[in-house]
Amino acid sequence: MAAQLREEKVFKDPVHKYIYVQDETIWNLINTKEFQRLRRVRQLGTSFMTFHGAEHSRFSHSLGVYEVARRIISQFERSRYPDWPKEERLLCLCAALLHDIGHGPFSHSVESVFGTHHEQWTCKLVLGNTEVNRVLTEADPELPRKVADVICKTYDKEIVVSLISSQLDADRMDYLLRDAYYTGVHYGTFDLERILRVIRPHRGHMVVKESGMHAIEDYLMSRYQMYWQVYFHPVTRSSEILLRKIFERAKALYGERYRFQFLMGPLVGLLENEITLEDYVALDEAYIQMTIMQWCKERDAILSDLCARFMHRRLFKYVALDEIGEQLEGELRAGLMNCGIDPDYYLVIDYLTDLPYDIYRPGDAEESLPIWLLDGQNRLVEISRKSDIIRSISSIHSGKHHVYFPEELLRQGNSCLSAELLSVLKPGG
Amino acid sequence: MAAQLREEKVFKDPVHKYIYVQDETIWNLINTKEFQRLRRVRQLGTSFMTFHGAEHSRFSHSLGVYEVARRIISQFERSRYPDWPKEERLLCLCAALLHDIGHGPFSHSVESVFGTHHEQWTCKLVLGNTEVNRVLTEADPELPRKVADVICKTYDKEIVVSLISSQLDADRMDYLLRDAYYTGVHYGTFDLERILRVIRPHRGHMVVKESGMHAIEDYLMSRYQMYWQVYFHPVTRSSEILLRKIFERAKALYGERYRFQFLMGPLVGLLENEITLEDYVALDEAYIQMTIMQWCKERDAILSDLCARFMHRRLFKYVALDEIGEQLEGELRAGLMNCGIDPDYYLVIDYLTDLPYDIYRPGDAEESLPIWLLDGQNRLVEISRKSDIIRSISSIHSGKHHVYFPEELLRQGNSCLSAELLSVLKPGG
Amino acid sequence: MAAQLREEKVFKDPVHKYIYVQDETIWNLINTKEFQRLRRVRQLGTSFMTFHGAEHSRFSHSLGVYEVARRIISQFERSRYPDWPKEERLLCLCAALLHDIGHGPFSHSVESVFGTHHEQWTCKLVLGNTEVNRVLTEADPELPRKVADVICKTYDKEIVVSLISSQLDADRMDYLLRDAYYTGVHYGTFDLERILRVIRPHRGHMVVKESGMHAIEDYLMSRYQMYWQVYFHPVTRSSEILLRKIFERAKALYGERYRFQFLMGPLVGLLENEITLEDYVALDEAYIQMTIMQWCKERDAILSDLCARFMHRRLFKYVALDEIGEQLEGELRAGLMNCGIDPDYYLVIDYLTDLPYDIYRPGDAEESLPIWLLDGQNRLVEISRKSDIIRSISSIHSGKHHVYFPEELLRQGNSCLSAELLSVLKPGG
Amino acid sequence: MAAQLREEKVFKDPVHKYIYVQDETIWNLINTKEFQRLRRVRQLGTSFMTFHGAEHSRFSHSLGVYEVARRIISQFERSRYPDWPKEERLLCLCAALLHDIGHGPFSHSVESVFGTHHEQWTCKLVLGNTEVNRVLTEADPELPRKVADVICKTYDKEIVVSLISSQLDADRMDYLLRDAYYTGVHYGTFDLERILRVIRPHRGHMVVKESGMHAIEDYLMSRYQMYWQVYFHPVTRSSEILLRKIFERAKALYGERYRFQFLMGPLVGLLENEITLEDYVALDEAYIQMTIMQWCKERDAILSDLCARFMHRRLFKYVALDEIGEQLEGELRAGLMNCGIDPDYYLVIDYLTDLPYDIYRPGDAEESLPIWLLDGQNRLVEISRKSDIIRSISSIHSGKHHVYFPEELLRQGNSCLSAELLSVLKPGG
Repeated sequence: MAAQLREEKVFKDPVHKYIYVQDETIWNLINTKEFQRLRRVRQLGTSFMTFHGAEHSRFSHSLGVYEVARRIISQFERSRYPDWPKEERLLCLCAALLHDIGHGPFSHSVESVFGTHHEQWTCKLVLGNTEVNRVLTEADPELPRKVADVICKTYDKEIVVSLISSQLDADRMDYLLRDAYYTGVHYGTFDLERILRVIRPHRGHMVVKESGMHAIEDYLMSRYQMYWQVYFHPVTRSSEILLRKIFERAKALYGERYRFQFLMGPLVGLLENEITLEDYVALDEAYIQMTIMQWCKERDAILSDLCARFMHRRLFKYVALDEIGEQLEGELRAGLMNCGIDPDYYLVIDYLTDLPYDIYRPGDAEESLPIWLLDGQNRLVEISRKSDIIRSISSIHSGKHHVYFPEELLRQGNSCLSAELLSVLKPGG
Repeated sequence: MAAQLREEKVFKDPVHKYIYVQDETIWNLINTKEFQRLRRVRQLGTSFMTFHGAEHSRFSHSLGVYEVARRIISQFERSRYPDWPKEERLLCLCAALLHDIGHGPFSHSVESVFGTHHEQWTCKLVLGNTEVNRVLTEADPELPRKVADVICKTYDKEIVVSLISSQLDADRMDYLLRDAYYTGVHYGTFDLERILRVIRPHRGHMVVKESGMHAIEDYLMSRYQMYWQVYFHPVTRSSEILLRKIFERAKALYGERYRFQFLMGPLVGLLENEITLEDYVALDEAYIQMTIMQWCKERDAILSDLCARFMHRRLFKYVALDEIGEQLEGELRAGLMNCGIDPDYYLVIDYLTDLPYDIYRPGDAEESLPIWLLDGQNRLVEISRKSDIIRSISSIHSGKHHVYFPEELLRQGNSCLSAELLSVLKPGG
Repeated sequence: MAAQLREEKVFKDPVHKYIYVQDETIWNLINTKEFQRLRRVRQLGTSFMTFHGAEHSRFSHSLGVYEVARRIISQFERSRYPDWPKEERLLCLCAALLHDIGHGPFSHSVESVFGTHHEQWTCKLVLGNTEVNRVLTEADPELPRKVADVICKTYDKEIVVSLISSQLDADRMDYLLRDAYYTGVHYGTFDLERILRVIRPHRGHMVVKESGMHAIEDYLMSRYQMYWQVYFHPVTRSSEILLRKIFERAKALYGERYRFQFLMGPLVGLLENEITLEDYVALDEAYIQMTIMQWCKERDAILSDLCARFMHRRLFKYVALDEIGEQLEGELRAGLMNCGIDPDYYLVIDYLTDLPYDIYRPGDAEESLPIWLLDGQNRLVEISRKSDIIRSISSIHSGKHHVYFPEELLRQGNSCLSAELLSVLKPGG
Repeated sequence: MAAQLREEKVFKDPVHKYIYVQDETIWNLINTKEFQRLRRVRQLGTSFMTFHGAEHSRFSHSLGVYEVARRIISQFERSRYPDWPKEERLLCLCAALLHDIGHGPFSHSVESVFGTHHEQWTCKLVLGNTEVNRVLTEADPELPRKVADVICKTYDKEIVVSLISSQLDADRMDYLLRDAYYTGVHYGTFDLERILRVIRPHRGHMVVKESGMHAIEDYLMSRYQMYWQVYFHPVTRSSEILLRKIFERAKALYGERYRFQFLMGPLVGLLENEITLEDYVALDEAYIQMTIMQWCKERDAILSDLCARFMHRRLFKYVALDEIGEQLEGELRAGLMNCGIDPDYYLVIDYLTDLPYDIYRPGDAEESLPIWLLDGQNRLVEISRKSDIIRSISSIHSGKHHVYFPEELLRQGNSCLSAELLSVLKPGG
């Protein structure tokens, strides 16, 4: 077990310069078909419609998470920290590499409509009859189980889980740097090398020594900025909404036994809510995109219109409103129906804090493991109690509503909407 | 014509920081479905299998070429060079933006098997019944014709053509920087801002003032390095070869009236050598990838094996040989056939200088416009006559043969190959 | 007046890539001996003792401020904002270039001991009998007066003053980027190009359009981080303190008619509190450093010891204390005196908020012009009222005391200090 | 000996991000006054007059060389190369750190006029009665001798010498990257991390594995570009010439027993050709600059004029000529004398290939150790025999003459020069 490669392998990586592979197990995992499939799933879903550079895949990101984890561990080993459980190295590296293996194409939209969960699929892929499972088992029959436990946060050593999922984990460190690099938005950059030097294992926890507080502030500010500048960008939301509406329409039609001109493979499984492991591995973005391309020619007007909008990037426009009461929503729906537009598919009110996001917020119910500062007296303090900046970020509530709708349809049919409603729906830049 | 947008639009771009759009025509071109399609065609084809970061699309690159052209022209206008024909500005920008619009998915392989030409398709898309054509015509009924002429290098003003296709054009300047950025290979970077300052129009030519010679040397060295490090990388070649073999097999089977379990849309057109404009626009990488994914399950053993290799990245290995005589090739073919392996699909001898590449080589038959230096006495000199470095690059001949083959099959069946042949086929790192 | 150079001149600059000079006046100002003198004054004083890369001069920074101002104005002109007073262009550029011309070597320490003020010297140099004055006068006899007014913030157009001294001025934008570049601390980087796009003149004010708020947050966070990571770094403070103590000792000795073995030139002027314009121009860091080097050999033990410490970087160590009462201070002084150490020169208690710093703090008495946000309804709002992050930064109070002292002397003579005091003075990392 | 620090120390460095110190000896060497003196000697002499950012010191560079050497060795150790003599680690690190410790201010000019040699001074500082010597001796009494041997290339293990002085040594790798960073000229960047991965010890030599050839080409091209763009820049040459002329004049005056108004310290030693170790350590740029500042007021018209030119950057202009025969030189001298200008101080003909430069040129008499490629058959080949690019660089001869002279004096007195001579002396950009 844990055999070393005869010669270290490297991958050229724009974010970390090089990614180094020393273990045979890691090398073999990368070459499984389940891992190679991540090349066909974009890291940021539909964000490439907003930031044209954001075309990078989960494959790149997964290698990056592995590399960050490798560097953290290698720093721990070099510093000979007694609290670091050396025997967990390979487990950590495998979990880092595989933590996203269950992600399907455009997960946000697919999961919200079809009720799949990428974490569950990750476990199925790690534990099921897969190449990944065989490679892990070969290294150690216990490894698949352990990897699944770490990814599901049920593994019993907090420090191992911390490395993969906490407020300061290899996953976040890679995606901030990577998404910043590919979007071209520089906000996501922070000093990774410095963070590697200030974190350390301490009595089962991952902690930050106090002098590193400003580096963590900088990292959390990066996250804050990336959320508002990139991840929550309303144009990205608009394309996600479109995708969701496409799936909702397809689901509804399927329920009504509509006869699709094109419908094959894993999507039937999704619609039937019965998808096999093999089908899931075949479910990639090419498959979704080609299906949507075909559906541009479906007879159902709503489905074909939504699909053409997605394909040719004719997105819904949006308006930000501080508050949207039930009354306004009712009026909007009625107004659209007047114009002959089905509000179920053409009107979406989006409230950003509804999102499952992870701006640092200690104390949240679903919070990840918080960031602990180790002070001069060897005491642990949750970081937002020391840092005004972090406390401030943590307590920010967004609270903007966005209304998404097909502006050009309204403009064409503007006689059917009251002047008052039209003034509310005047889109910005 | 040439209406300005009320407010300048910007795209965030990792390479040029921002891409600025001031003209309504440019804005409308970007929003056509033919241009949006470029989001679904990778800039570097199968290179992402070698450099995982190289997942960027022709959409990004096309915006970049536009931006470089815009900056060059804006520099010309600011410097009030009398030899710059100001009235050609919009034409140049449109040609820069659209020069790659005819590129299909994985063009190299598709074109070599099916005989399509992306330049021809670019002209068809510009001149045919398309959204692009409508937008251009709206600005000026002559514009589509002119844009096609510039792209086909038949336009009568050399300086306009130079901007889009010459040894120092906006196309090359963008792709070197962009491909370097996305692969993470830093060789492709050069000082764009300095080059913008040393080029200028001079009596109908684009020239470089002599003091800028070192900047051009640096740019050409970047190109040289990118060719050898990235574009000719044998692993990339290996994946292209696989793709070509897939198409060749499909074509052969189609000729034999094999009944494909999955075959639809534009590919039928390609196989029939009759593809419509509408089908061509639908031909994207999602379509090709999904087809290959489906073909993994075809009954034909060769087709399904090649497809699974491509999908799961089980590439042919390669061996570099200084020379391959006819005799050796014959022995290799015979040896493979002995093992039951069809050499038509599983043995490829690749000679790099066969490639249609464009390392700077003045005097070549198909050469683009060369680089002119304007010396202190206002005389034009072809740059390789002044620069030893450039002369040296220009005269380099590669001359390596690479043999590509499925190594693991040979290893399994190694009794069927002579020891001598096996020793020739010992792959390197 | 405002003659253009026949050909644009450029300076290669690591921060802005190139600095462009188009006006003859600017070119001539750069070539005056008063401006060239800035090459011999470091931008960050003694910070190079903490960050060895921080060896850049005020010359570089001054060119940078000019360049940022030039880009802002050029953006204003390109956008044809009606509220921008075009006729002020050259004035703005000159003021930007010259705003630091009165800075002497190690200003903080020199000014605090000798009572000089760099702003006053800037005015003297602009208005006095200098090359700078002659160049300005040649362009416009009113120009020297106006430049002085802008720099002293008494010029009557707020927008012109804003460009040079406000919370979001060309000065700060350059120094954050530049100091970050030369120290290697990446915290100071922000998206200058984006900021240039969101600021604009509006009814006499410089404002930021609301959608640019996050870019400003990022800029202010950079400033916040640079203050804590670089400008307030205790090692830098320690070397400044040493310098101050050297000057204080020299002043005291001079008052006692001590006979210096080396004392010449402008320093006599400083000690006499009578320094001529000509002497001031000769006052550079070479002069101060050589003097200190010579003083290493003075008979006065305190002076020579302090000078050798500065020269060979044997700095005082420091201890951070949350609070230092009068009693503790008394004990420390007494303890040191017991050891034969003069606390007037060897004990310094430093309280960071005593510093004349400029973390964003609207409402402060000496505050610069605040940052105005222009909201969707065309109303101006001070930015910290919209941004939680900025409000949070603005209200942070540091409040740490640092005690500086020669640790190794204490260690040698530790019998003379009580164990309690010794435990207080245990220096950290 | 070779004691480790309890906790690793780091220096923030803009080029290498961080510089790591693990050995007590290294830490103590950095803190000696001889090493701290390097803070007061600029790495690139007068280049800051051409590239204003180039104000970095030999201190920064020396730390950088140390860091590159540390990384090379650490890569060797991690790869467990059997041909690497592990016991030489500390020696290599000390030699890397100290290799430039004998450099005085503006070495080129000082050495050419006064006949000092920085290598000799390095040995004196390492072997003499210095703090550096004491720190080395403490680690190992043999260490000073060995360090001197490595720096003088007389140490008997080629591989150790290679690390510090060869065509691919830690010195060059740092200075290319560092000088590129500080000048802002990007040509000097190359992929250090990749080079670290392709070099290795092999039977006493440092070699490059063949697949790394392109990385070395890129590195040598960087060097080539840096030489022509930065190190040989005619404006830099012009300021060096001025400095040399100042020293020559002072030497001549001193020979004639001229009474200087200001003359003290180490300069007397230089003029007397008798300088003590202590004086040499005090010889820094502050000292030279202040002396030149004072000399602006000397009675000797030539000395004071040259000094004022240097101080206020009124450099000689230059003209490039393909060839300068004896006759032309004679005419120029005569012409200048006609104008009352002393050609010994005001006319310099500079031939670049006279310079002691080190563009890669295997076979040169004084050549450093060449670059060896290790081919697939484990044979060593000198790299220029494999690489066309490198062969081409190696054989380039510059061959431009530059004439430097005070253009404005000629312009004022142009009646005294023949029209023919004036046309020859028409300076370019």
